[in-house]
Amino acid sequence: MIRASIVGGSGYAGGELLRLLLDHPQIEVTAVTSRRHPGEYVYQVHPNLRRRTSLKFGAAERLEPVDVLFLALPHGEAQHQIESLARLAPRVIDLSADFRLRSPQAYERWYGSPHAAPDWLGRFVYGLPELERETIRTAPYVSGVGCNAAATILALLPLASAGLIDEAHPILAEIKVGSSEGGAEGNPGSHHPERSGVIRTFSAFGHRHTAEVIQALGREDVSLTMTSVDTVRGALATAHLTVRPGLTDKDLWQAYRQASASNPFLRVVKEARGVYRVPEPKILAGSNYADLGFEYDAGRRYVVAMGAIDNLMKGAAGSAVQCMNLMQGWDETLGLTFPGLHPA
Amino acid sequence: MIRASIVGGSGYAGGELLRLLLDHPQIEVTAVTSRRHPGEYVYQVHPNLRRRTSLKFGAAERLEPVDVLFLALPHGEAQHQIESLARLAPRVIDLSADFRLRSPQAYERWYGSPHAAPDWLGRFVYGLPELERETIRTAPYVSGVGCNAAATILALLPLASAGLIDEAHPILAEIKVGSSEGGAEGNPGSHHPERSGVIRTFSAFGHRHTAEVIQALGREDVSLTMTSVDTVRGALATAHLTVRPGLTDKDLWQAYRQASASNPFLRVVKEARGVYRVPEPKILAGSNYADLGFEYDAGRRYVVAMGAIDNLMKGAAGSAVQCMNLMQGWDETLGLTFPGLHPA
Amino acid sequence: MIRASIVGGSGYAGGELLRLLLDHPQIEVTAVTSRRHPGEYVYQVHPNLRRRTSLKFGAAERLEPVDVLFLALPHGEAQHQIESLARLAPRVIDLSADFRLRSPQAYERWYGSPHAAPDWLGRFVYGLPELERETIRTAPYVSGVGCNAAATILALLPLASAGLIDEAHPILAEIKVGSSEGGAEGNPGSHHPERSGVIRTFSAFGHRHTAEVIQALGREDVSLTMTSVDTVRGALATAHLTVRPGLTDKDLWQAYRQASASNPFLRVVKEARGVYRVPEPKILAGSNYADLGFEYDAGRRYVVAMGAIDNLMKGAAGSAVQCMNLMQGWDETLGLTFPGLHPA
Amino acid sequence: MIRASIVGGSGYAGGELLRLLLDHPQIEVTAVTSRRHPGEYVYQVHPNLRRRTSLKFGAAERLEPVDVLFLALPHGEAQHQIESLARLAPRVIDLSADFRLRSPQAYERWYGSPHAAPDWLGRFVYGLPELERETIRTAPYVSGVGCNAAATILALLPLASAGLIDEAHPILAEIKVGSSEGGAEGNPGSHHPERSGVIRTFSAFGHRHTAEVIQALGREDVSLTMTSVDTVRGALATAHLTVRPGLTDKDLWQAYRQASASNPFLRVVKEARGVYRVPEPKILAGSNYADLGFEYDAGRRYVVAMGAIDNLMKGAAGSAVQCMNLMQGWDETLGLTFPGLHPA
Repeated sequence: MIRASIVGGSGYAGGELLRLLLDHPQIEVTAVTSRRHPGEYVYQVHPNLRRRTSLKFGAAERLEPVDVLFLALPHGEAQHQIESLARLAPRVIDLSADFRLRSPQAYERWYGSPHAAPDWLGRFVYGLPELERETIRTAPYVSGVGCNAAATILALLPLASAGLIDEAHPILAEIKVGSSEGGAEGNPGSHHPERSGVIRTFSAFGHRHTAEVIQALGREDVSLTMTSVDTVRGALATAHLTVRPGLTDKDLWQAYRQASASNPFLRVVKEARGVYRVPEPKILAGSNYADLGFEYDAGRRYVVAMGAIDNLMKGAAGSAVQCMNLMQGWDETLGLTFPGLHPA
Repeated sequence: MIRASIVGGSGYAGGELLRLLLDHPQIEVTAVTSRRHPGEYVYQVHPNLRRRTSLKFGAAERLEPVDVLFLALPHGEAQHQIESLARLAPRVIDLSADFRLRSPQAYERWYGSPHAAPDWLGRFVYGLPELERETIRTAPYVSGVGCNAAATILALLPLASAGLIDEAHPILAEIKVGSSEGGAEGNPGSHHPERSGVIRTFSAFGHRHTAEVIQALGREDVSLTMTSVDTVRGALATAHLTVRPGLTDKDLWQAYRQASASNPFLRVVKEARGVYRVPEPKILAGSNYADLGFEYDAGRRYVVAMGAIDNLMKGAAGSAVQCMNLMQGWDETLGLTFPGLHPA
Repeated sequence: MIRASIVGGSGYAGGELLRLLLDHPQIEVTAVTSRRHPGEYVYQVHPNLRRRTSLKFGAAERLEPVDVLFLALPHGEAQHQIESLARLAPRVIDLSADFRLRSPQAYERWYGSPHAAPDWLGRFVYGLPELERETIRTAPYVSGVGCNAAATILALLPLASAGLIDEAHPILAEIKVGSSEGGAEGNPGSHHPERSGVIRTFSAFGHRHTAEVIQALGREDVSLTMTSVDTVRGALATAHLTVRPGLTDKDLWQAYRQASASNPFLRVVKEARGVYRVPEPKILAGSNYADLGFEYDAGRRYVVAMGAIDNLMKGAAGSAVQCMNLMQGWDETLGLTFPGLHPA
Repeated sequence: MIRASIVGGSGYAGGELLRLLLDHPQIEVTAVTSRRHPGEYVYQVHPNLRRRTSLKFGAAERLEPVDVLFLALPHGEAQHQIESLARLAPRVIDLSADFRLRSPQAYERWYGSPHAAPDWLGRFVYGLPELERETIRTAPYVSGVGCNAAATILALLPLASAGLIDEAHPILAEIKVGSSEGGAEGNPGSHHPERSGVIRTFSAFGHRHTAEVIQALGREDVSLTMTSVDTVRGALATAHLTVRPGLTDKDLWQAYRQASASNPFLRVVKEARGVYRVPEPKILAGSNYADLGFEYDAGRRYVVAMGAIDNLMKGAAGSAVQCMNLMQGWDETLGLTFPGLHPA
């Protein structure tokens, strides 16, 4: 058993992380902090944890040293406190956007202001095990992932890993997302009568998570379009791309099977019948799986690649725990066994 | 054509009222006021009205005299301004809770503070045409209705009008409501990730609309229980009551047919087959109909009476327009012909 | 007043059409047929029409001649009966897919079997007034539109009409749709526990409505991707395209304003603030409006064009009534004034 | 490790049971049968179980003897096969309605036909551990629970166990339920466009689950009213009752605390602030918790008691696994640790 604490545990990613850590067989959670809910029982904010923990939200200033420190602060805060926070633990996993990009220039371009701790960007590893598994194993500092970036990168991973993508053509990903992606703080657009039933393309291009996909793929001509739909959890990336000449259906299948075989949380979903023929986020709520699928038009060399995740799990807390497992040398699936529900 | 203005038109009831008035064949809307959105185009707040009106929200202080003035202010405000507002028009219809109760004592008991203009309570008529049609025809001042009260009163109306209810037994109404009932201002509980999918009994008893049902029925032993469910519009009152001895199914049917025959917006829904056998609010969105139904256990003299409405129409703006039609001597269905959608 | 009948009125498009015709100031509905619900009251299937009509579903064989005949049969049936049906009325409007394509070859390619009445393809005009207004005015035979095609064509219409699209680049439209698009007959995937909350890319490419977009634009390199989301009504097309060199934001705005000025049901939605900044189908339920918007990246000459409609209105029954209005020489907005609801 | 099989595993309760057993630390699942999906992979029907099991649905006729046999057949079937099925295992847990009632007369009254194996009714124990824990420990045959009965019984349990209910007054429970309660087979009313957004009081009284509540409480004057709302999982029972004279709030609190202390899956939810003040099923999806709460009007001796569950867990598969744990002498929470999600 090792000790872990969470800085900023009253948001949605922090709450999901806490749920995972409380049931993790190797973890003792020693503290959870919150500025918005100081002194409140954790279960008053995360009602699913009632009777699971008697922890109260504490102040970040009073944190004791631990074995692993998770940061789940609002974007832009961790970079100002990383020096002091890093003294609290030999291993730090930050779920915010602060340390996902390696380049200070890229950070400034996409986030609109210079990074407050540019030296730290190089010390963090991007926390998507499917992309950086071996590096993560020995890293002291690991970032989180943007949920939309994770859905897109994973949708493309089988073809990218196998080198099948034709880089002469741009990649476009249309991502449909639920309301939890907007975080635990309400706004006029998240008021239920306004948000219910929406199909709202709120970002045609230029979404910040694009930067992570560009970094992961090593190419610039990638565009993300974001549309809100009526669900709480879940993100589906439908990516449009062109593959290299001469490929058969079998070649693509092989790439997907290879990706799935190498990654315990990747599943290929491509069925000829039944209700669930393609990847769908609804059955992934609470699960760390990413479901991947594709359709291929050989004549046009055109592929529609799909990646479905729970934005709070594979797109946030689930990947963070998976990273911790790797950093600690444990089975990477430890504490991540909930498969999701059907029906849901 | 007569001129009408709306004080407080940026809320949900005000917006719905404006939609109705803009399409009403006898009405010219001259002004709509809002404190939250001064100077904004009405369609920026009520996007369905884009291309329907170039009105902007104005200040209440600049209102010109009109033929009919509608008040759609937050509860508690109209009673402080009624003296000056009433000078603007010979006919005033107030959608808020301020003038629904006739008794200052009842107001104070249910709203927790003395009424600011108790003399005016007696001048207003309760604005439910199915209950006060003849009085409304000649009234200069008409109140709105509480949506849950309207659903409950209408659910009970056929049996109450026919004198079939056994007053020795209490009445219990369980009301299921959508999120628009909470108004256009968000709160932590209306944030989509928290509000989506709820079944939340937020008021076990003591809801303020109970006072209107008590007043309408002339008896105290009435209890309302309120549960939020996942829809935007709609309220269903499921009322439990005991009827007088000796009644047959036929007696109850006759009471319902009589109520429907006397009221153009009451429909009886009680089918033996098909999908829509009982009253359901989902098909009433935008409509002024109230759908009524019942089940009767003659052995126990027990009736479950159902009343479904759109809380913003029959439970607010629709009834207000219906009242205006009556006050003006017009056909009471004028401008209220939209029947609702199927499917929806 | 003219007489109209509907063949196949128990489906969703037929029911919506009936709702519109019953409230249309110039129409008397003389008959509605259904094979699935013979002899049933129309309101037992379309519960919103209770107290609006005492019509029962009749048999198509007993139809009397009328002024306008609407066909709302399942796809593939009208082509077999068109000869006899056309004898019943001087004007026929068919909502099915049978007469939307002008070319028998295109029909066979997209629908998988030869057309049963290829001679009739040339007699029908494609029933999207924004595309074929002048031709429709004098046409005896008008087809319906595919809802996804209509959303896509309208999303592209302002830029296409103004000649701003660079035809050297392909067009991709990602369309998100509600469950009513699948029709009134259930299937395992439409069972509520399976369908609720979905984000399901059920057609990556090759959807039949693609053929209508290709025909409307006069170019082949158009691809449609279809994703089901959790709403009943509504379709949003998010189209990705490249425009000609040298265009400014102002040029695009001008194209949109021109389209809106020329078409009473097109609205441009592109706001800098507020909740409703982009086209959204949720406020269009029951309305014949199509809301259009765009985002432009001048550097890449890249446009994301959005088109939102109610699939049963502008995408089916609403356009059909608009066509009838044009064919009859009436104001094309007659009977189509319901603006949609907010909130909804 | 012991061996378990499921007869009838393609329905919703069977699928949920399988999910629990596959992750249960003491269970090896040896077979799952289905008549509707013979030979199909289990994950084709229950897509959440992809990569969790390579089991295929087999035929009931080929079942091998096991340690525990679960029956999840459609209601009415197990009673015809119980003799032969019981030979397959020393312990049988039946999730259907066939063996819930002890009295053949009660069965015939509520289910409309004589029971096919009346001798077996007395051998089964009602499978709600909160009611029958000690009997279940030594029982070879345990029934399932009706989900609505379970929600109602648990809502009343604290007050009933403490003897606080005034039996001179009837009990009324209004239960709001999701669509999964209707099972995995679709019907016209479960088609998404019809079922989405409903508030449908489909059973005013006389629901079969009433019989279980009557049996559990040992009194006849109990009435259940069922209303469908728009969620997939979850049931909330809002029960209205009268308590004995002279009771204070403190007395009721003590009863609830006692119930919670004696039962690991009962939680008391009664908060003065925050979003989650009352029991709500939405946070219980996938969890075996039952959340209980109450409001008390001492003047009227009137209590509104609330009980929220996941109908497929505490109301079906979760209670069944809890029973198995008790029958095997294991910790009753084994394999039931998933706490539900927030947000969800």
